[in-house]
Amino acid sequence: MEKDFSHFDSQGNAIMIDISQKETTSRTAIAKGIISMNADAMNAVLGGTVKKGDVLGVARIAGIMAAKKCASLIPLCHPLNFDKCTIDFKFKKDDSSIEKNEIEAACEIKLTGKTGAEMEALTGVSIALLTIYDMCKALDKTMVIGNIRLYEKSGGKNGLYKQETRINAD
Amino acid sequence: MEKDFSHFDSQGNAIMIDISQKETTSRTAIAKGIISMNADAMNAVLGGTVKKGDVLGVARIAGIMAAKKCASLIPLCHPLNFDKCTIDFKFKKDDSSIEKNEIEAACEIKLTGKTGAEMEALTGVSIALLTIYDMCKALDKTMVIGNIRLYEKSGGKNGLYKQETRINAD
Amino acid sequence: MEKDFSHFDSQGNAIMIDISQKETTSRTAIAKGIISMNADAMNAVLGGTVKKGDVLGVARIAGIMAAKKCASLIPLCHPLNFDKCTIDFKFKKDDSSIEKNEIEAACEIKLTGKTGAEMEALTGVSIALLTIYDMCKALDKTMVIGNIRLYEKSGGKNGLYKQETRINAD
Amino acid sequence: MEKDFSHFDSQGNAIMIDISQKETTSRTAIAKGIISMNADAMNAVLGGTVKKGDVLGVARIAGIMAAKKCASLIPLCHPLNFDKCTIDFKFKKDDSSIEKNEIEAACEIKLTGKTGAEMEALTGVSIALLTIYDMCKALDKTMVIGNIRLYEKSGGKNGLYKQETRINAD
Amino acid sequence: MEKDFSHFDSQGNAIMIDISQKETTSRTAIAKGIISMNADAMNAVLGGTVKKGDVLGVARIAGIMAAKKCASLIPLCHPLNFDKCTIDFKFKKDDSSIEKNEIEAACEIKLTGKTGAEMEALTGVSIALLTIYDMCKALDKTMVIGNIRLYEKSGGKNGLYKQETRINAD
Amino acid sequence: MEKDFSHFDSQGNAIMIDISQKETTSRTAIAKGIISMNADAMNAVLGGTVKKGDVLGVARIAGIMAAKKCASLIPLCHPLNFDKCTIDFKFKKDDSSIEKNEIEAACEIKLTGKTGAEMEALTGVSIALLTIYDMCKALDKTMVIGNIRLYEKSGGKNGLYKQETRINAD
Repeated sequence: MEKDFSHFDSQGNAIMIDISQKETTSRTAIAKGIISMNADAMNAVLGGTVKKGDVLGVARIAGIMAAKKCASLIPLCHPLNFDKCTIDFKFKKDDSSIEKNEIEAACEIKLTGKTGAEMEALTGVSIALLTIYDMCKALDKTMVIGNIRLYEKSGGKNGLYKQETRINAD
Repeated sequence: MEKDFSHFDSQGNAIMIDISQKETTSRTAIAKGIISMNADAMNAVLGGTVKKGDVLGVARIAGIMAAKKCASLIPLCHPLNFDKCTIDFKFKKDDSSIEKNEIEAACEIKLTGKTGAEMEALTGVSIALLTIYDMCKALDKTMVIGNIRLYEKSGGKNGLYKQETRINAD
Repeated sequence: MEKDFSHFDSQGNAIMIDISQKETTSRTAIAKGIISMNADAMNAVLGGTVKKGDVLGVARIAGIMAAKKCASLIPLCHPLNFDKCTIDFKFKKDDSSIEKNEIEAACEIKLTGKTGAEMEALTGVSIALLTIYDMCKALDKTMVIGNIRLYEKSGGKNGLYKQETRINAD
Repeated sequence: MEKDFSHFDSQGNAIMIDISQKETTSRTAIAKGIISMNADAMNAVLGGTVKKGDVLGVARIAGIMAAKKCASLIPLCHPLNFDKCTIDFKFKKDDSSIEKNEIEAACEIKLTGKTGAEMEALTGVSIALLTIYDMCKALDKTMVIGNIRLYEKSGGKNGLYKQETRINAD
Repeated sequence: MEKDFSHFDSQGNAIMIDISQKETTSRTAIAKGIISMNADAMNAVLGGTVKKGDVLGVARIAGIMAAKKCASLIPLCHPLNFDKCTIDFKFKKDDSSIEKNEIEAACEIKLTGKTGAEMEALTGVSIALLTIYDMCKALDKTMVIGNIRLYEKSGGKNGLYKQETRINAD
Repeated sequence: MEKDFSHFDSQGNAIMIDISQKETTSRTAIAKGIISMNADAMNAVLGGTVKKGDVLGVARIAGIMAAKKCASLIPLCHPLNFDKCTIDFKFKKDDSSIEKNEIEAACEIKLTGKTGAEMEALTGVSIALLTIYDMCKALDKTMVIGNIRLYEKSGGKNGLYKQETRINAD
C-alpha cells in the first residue's frame, strides 16, 4: 500500500497542514551536516583568528539568521518563533587525504510551539555550510557539502528521536 | 605558505570584495545535490501527479525563489540580478536498498554581470532538497542530503570549469 | 457624523493598533478572488498536467508563501504566526465568451491569536492570482483580476461573519 | 492547436525563462485597479488630512515597497532594478449607491532592462489596494478589490501596448 | 573582573540565547533618537501637508515596518510578534542656528512574550530617522542622526527602567 | 522661498524619483557613526577574541547584510546592486569617563549605477551599531548611538563631497 503525504490534501493540492489542534509543548531539534575541502582551505579556516579572518564566525551568524528565515524559504513550513538557536562546528583534519578534511556544523533549535523545528535546524546547517563554501571557494573549487540530516528531536507527540546510525549521502 | 581568503582584508575583517573593476560578461553556473530516502518516500514522490501531490513541483519553485534570495542569505555575496534559473530532478531508484533511492537536483543560473552565480545555484539546489525533505519527513525520518557541489561554471576570467570526478561528501 | 479609522491616533498618525488586551482565540478567515482570461489561456491552464506545466500548483505555493509575508507587505498589520493555510481553485469555463473564463482562488487561514487573519487570506489570494497572471500573460494580455473580498471570518469578539451577497467590483 | 506557456519547459517544469539574449531597453508599465467601499469608508478616506489620517499616503508607500519585492513574491519573475515608481489615486464618489464609491490606484514603473515591469506594476497596485482595505475594514466589511489589469506597456520587441477597452472582472 | 557577554557561549561563539525558561509577560519599550538639519530642510518638513509632501508620514510607516523586521536585521535577536507599535515625532526649531533644528522620533513597542522589545524599538527609530534623511538629503547634505537610545522599558524580571538623564552621543 | 523635496510630486505624493535619464557612473559613499558605552562594555568588546566572543565580527556581518537590504527598508530608495561593501571600526577609549568610550563604525559602498549609495552606507552603519548595542546591552543599559552621517561621496553629477567639519548630533 502506498503511503501518502501530509503536505497534500486528498486532491493532491499542496497545503500548510492544520496544526491548530496540536499541543503547545517545548520542542528541540538538532541537525548536522558536513563540508569537505582540500588542505589549503582547511588550513586557512583553522587559522581563523581575528587576524586571519574568522570564517566560522561569519558562517555561524549566517546560519542563525537563515534559521529565522526558514518559513520564508520552505514553502509549507509554519511560521514560528523560537527560544534558542546555536550553531557549533567540529573538525576532522587529515592532510594525507583531500577528502578527509571536514568541518561538521550542528544547529540546535529550541522552541515552545505546536510543531517541531527540524526544518529550521536543517536550514541553519545548510546556510552555515554554504557560507563556509562561499568564503573558501577561491582556495578550493571542489568542496562538497553533505550528510545534512536530522540528528535529534524531542517534544511533541512522537517524543525523542535520535539518529541511530550515520547514513551516507553520497 | 598559507593561502589567504579573498573575503577578508589584511586585518582579517570580513568584506564584500570589490568587483568594480571586473568585466561584465555572460556567466553560467550549474550546481547539483542529492537527497536519499527510503522506498516508501521515494514511491510517494514518484507517484507525484496532480492527484497525489507534486513534491518536485513545489521543490522546484522553492529552489528558484531561494536562488533569488541568495544575497540575503550568504553574508558576503554580491546582490545580482540573473537572466535564467532552472531546477531539474533525476532519480536513481533501487527498492532493494534504502540507500539507493536518490533524487538528484540540478540548478542552472545564467547571468550577465561582474561575478559568477555559483552561490545562487548552490542555494537553489540546497533549498529545493530541503523542501523535498520537508514534504517527505512524515514518511522517512532518516533522509540525508548530500553531494552538494558546483558542477559546471563558465564566464569570467577563469573560463570554463567542469567537475572532473564525483567526490563523495560524507 | 464622520466615522474614524482605528489605524490612526487622535492626531491622525498611522499606528499599529494596540491588541495587547484582546483575547487569544481560535480564528479563521477565508478570502476569495477571480482572474478572467481568454479561452487560449484557460485551455492551457486546464491542461495543466505535469507534462504541460502546472500553473495552479505554482500559484498555490506563491499564495501560501505570500500569506506568510503579509505583515511585511501591509504596513500596519500585526506580525502573527498561523496554524493552517490552504489555497483552492475553481473554474467557470465558457468558450463562447472571453469574459466567462474565470478561475476563482480561495485562501483559508486558521490561527490562534489576538487578531484576525483576513489580511493574510486576502494577500494569499492576491498573489496567487498575480502568479497565474504572470504565467499566462504571454497567451492573453487582457486578463483582469477582480472580486477580491473577505468571504468568511470567525473568532474574536465579532463572531462569525459571512458574506451575504456577491458584490461586483467592476 | 493548444498554445503553450513560456514559463514551462518541454517537460512541463516551471522555469525562470532565459532572457540573456533579449535587448536591454527602456521599458515602462502602468497597471490599474479599483477598490469599492461604502460611503462611510469613502468619506473617511477623502477626509484624509494629517489631522484625520492619510490612508492614501500609507497605501502609496506600501505599494511602492511591494513593487520592489515583486521578484520575491511572484515565483518566476526575474529580479530587476527599476528607475522610477509612482502610485496615483483617483476617486469616483456617489453617495446614492454603495457600489459607486471607488478608489482607483495606478502604478507606473520605468526601468532599463531585458524584461518588462508589468508584474511589478500589478504587484504595486494590488498591495496599495490591500493596504486601503486594511485601514478601512473597521468601517466596511464588504469592500471589494477588482479590475486589476495592465493599462499600458512600452519598450521591448512588442512596442507599445495600450488597453483598448475596459474589461469587467467580476 | 571582566564581565562577559550573554550573547556568546563559554567558547566565545555567538548564540541566540535560550529564553525558553523565561516568563511570558507583558513588556513595553520606548526608544528615541534625533535628526538635526538646516533651516531649509526643517521648513520643508514642517510644511508637510498633503500638498507639500508628508515626510513624517512616510518615515512613520518605514519605522513601523522596520520594527517588524528587527529579527532579520539584528543577528541574535529572537523572532517575536508584538501587540502595538507607534512612532511619534517632536520638533525643536531655531532658525538662528543650523544645529538647533531637530526632529525627535520615539518608537513604542508593546508585546506579550519572553523577551523585551528594545531592539525592535531602536530599529524602528533608526529607520524612521534614516527615511527622513533620505527625503531631505537634496536640501541638506550635512544632516546628522544621533542620540539613539532606550528611553523606557518595562516588564520581565528587571521591571521598569527609565533613562534618568540624557547622555550625549558624540 | 521655500525649497521643495525631490521625493514628492507637485501634488505632494511620495514618489520614487525617475533616474532613467541619469548617467551610469562609478559611485562611492562612506558613512560613519558612533556608539558610546561604559567601561565594562568597552572592555568586553575590546577583549573580543575567538575565545571571548567577537562582537565586532558579528556587527560587521550585520551591517553588510543590512546595506544589501536598504531598498526594502527605506521606502523611496531605488533597488540597486553594488560592487563592494566594507565596515570598519575604530575605538576611542578613556576609562576616566563613561562618555568617552566610543566605537566608530564606517561603511563604504562602491557601485556602478545611476544613483548614489549613501543610504546604503548609512543603513550599514546604523545596523552595525545597533548590533553592537544588542550584544552589549546586558552590560550597559545607557549606551547611545549618534553622529550617524555621510562622510564622503563621489561620482554622479555632483562629484566629490567631503564632510568639512564634524557636526554634533545631540
